[in-house]
Amino acid sequence: MKKLLVIGIGAGDPDFLTLQAVKAIARADVFLVLDKGEEKNDLTRLRQELLAAHARPGHRVVEAADPERDRAAAPAAYAAAVGDWRSRRADLYQGFVRDEIAADGVGALLVWGDPSLYDSTIAAVEQVLAHGEVRFEYSVVPGISCVSALAAAHRVPLNRVGRPFTVTTGRRLAETAAADVPDDVAVMLDAHDAYAGLAEPDAFTIYWGAYVGTPDELLLSGPVGEVAPTIQRVRAEARARKGWIMETYLLRRTDG
Amino acid sequence: MKKLLVIGIGAGDPDFLTLQAVKAIARADVFLVLDKGEEKNDLTRLRQELLAAHARPGHRVVEAADPERDRAAAPAAYAAAVGDWRSRRADLYQGFVRDEIAADGVGALLVWGDPSLYDSTIAAVEQVLAHGEVRFEYSVVPGISCVSALAAAHRVPLNRVGRPFTVTTGRRLAETAAADVPDDVAVMLDAHDAYAGLAEPDAFTIYWGAYVGTPDELLLSGPVGEVAPTIQRVRAEARARKGWIMETYLLRRTDG
Ligand SMILES: C[S@@+](CC[C@H](N)C(=O)[O-])C[C@H]1O[C@@H](n2cnc3c(N)ncnc32)[C@H](O)[C@@H]1O
Ligand SMILES: C[S@@+](CC[C@H](N)C(=O)[O-])C[C@H]1O[C@@H](n2cnc3c(N)ncnc32)[C@H](O)[C@@H]1O
Repeated sequence: MKKLLVIGIGAGDPDFLTLQAVKAIARADVFLVLDKGEEKNDLTRLRQELLAAHARPGHRVVEAADPERDRAAAPAAYAAAVGDWRSRRADLYQGFVRDEIAADGVGALLVWGDPSLYDSTIAAVEQVLAHGEVRFEYSVVPGISCVSALAAAHRVPLNRVGRPFTVTTGRRLAETAAADVPDDVAVMLDAHDAYAGLAEPDAFTIYWGAYVGTPDELLLSGPVGEVAPTIQRVRAEARARKGWIMETYLLRRTDG
Repeated sequence: MKKLLVIGIGAGDPDFLTLQAVKAIARADVFLVLDKGEEKNDLTRLRQELLAAHARPGHRVVEAADPERDRAAAPAAYAAAVGDWRSRRADLYQGFVRDEIAADGVGALLVWGDPSLYDSTIAAVEQVLAHGEVRFEYSVVPGISCVSALAAAHRVPLNRVGRPFTVTTGRRLAETAAADVPDDVAVMLDAHDAYAGLAEPDAFTIYWGAYVGTPDELLLSGPVGEVAPTIQRVRAEARARKGWIMETYLLRRTDG
């Protein structure tokens, strides 16, 4: 049976790789690497370093362009745009399994961070399985998410004792009424400084990080009302300098 | 300066250890290991295996009894009971830093899973720093949480596209009104089968796992209304057989 490994590689530091991921990388005959446009220089380099360090001699790398996604889609069309993009990803994966993995071979997909968090790989692979046109087994190797990496870098817990903790997107945060913003919430995929639009900036402390775990790591924290302008400036500068940014933050409502 | 490393070791599989954690373990001169009572045989054995595999020759291990915690505390007193227990933990850590770490030495605390999720180590270490009686630096190494491990074992994403994801405790879930149960929620620290008490069992799919990532791993999934009795039986049997259980689950509300 063909085997596909969906391997979480952690969100930034090559040393976020787990021993399980190291072993999974060493088992694979062939890797599918998707080209991500501008982020390519840094992120593709990281993936190449991981393969150079851990893949077995003679492994093959298949490169493909990541399907274009309609990033300008209106909020209501967001899920549909992602769904369409995921189907094209599924086609790519299906071709990879069919054409590149040998009958008893092992193929691998390297996923940024943790494959279970804001990533479409698992859903796209399930779609390939559901099509039923290619037969294969697959398994998932968990990874260090950017949320865990952020919390460790700031040395803060994600939750308070016995209380819940939420992860959401910048888009969702921007749509949430002030009273409904969770007390402890990590925000990802924020292209529009949603923290700066909080109706009660002084009710929250922010722990912000960009390029967490990499040599470019930036960390800032403090009451939102005080530090938001600094974060916006630092963020804009970093984005201009590198051409792209990846950032995430934790918001913690002051008790009482 | 004395250095303290708070090292996430992942939640189950020794191969959940990251390369960063492996390096951190190899740097430490001395480890504080807390004895956890009944879970001891398995969990202490795992910690010992990690040290045998990765700690440097000549490292020392200091053992101490984990302070007793008032687990029977009424819900209202829960945070206070945890706070009290955390203070006694802080005292332990302070003694460890003061008496066991040499002037330029490195000490380490091994934390189950990810130190940022439902764990008191960071807060207790911050308390030691705030006391100001011992001077030291500390850093945190993120780990694979039981939530990431669960999602990978079931091969399910934690969130749906563009939507939030919550982590909470069994106690909180039991107190939450049916309509307020989040659509996608991971539950930890559930001693009383809170999933079985959901007011709308047929509105949710459950992905349940016990001892995830270990040789004893148990996984069950399906509509809550159908599988809850099976989970309860399997859980009770496992708990009786091993004397303790660690379990977590994801609840996903059916759309529409
Ligand atoms: C499509 S999601 C993938 C998340 C990934 N699966 C994970 O577990 O971290 C990409 C988003 O994750 C966040 N992100 C990923 N890596 C990051 C890093 N090293 N530093 C800060 N944010 C990061 C950013 O918010 C980015 O928009
Ligand atoms: C005090 S919390 C610590 C969580 C840990 N810091 C983490 O990141 O997973 C302990 C709870 O985590 C869950 N847990 C930890 N390890 C687990 C495993 N291997 N399988 C299932 N549940 C686990 C259980 O719900 C348990 O009650």
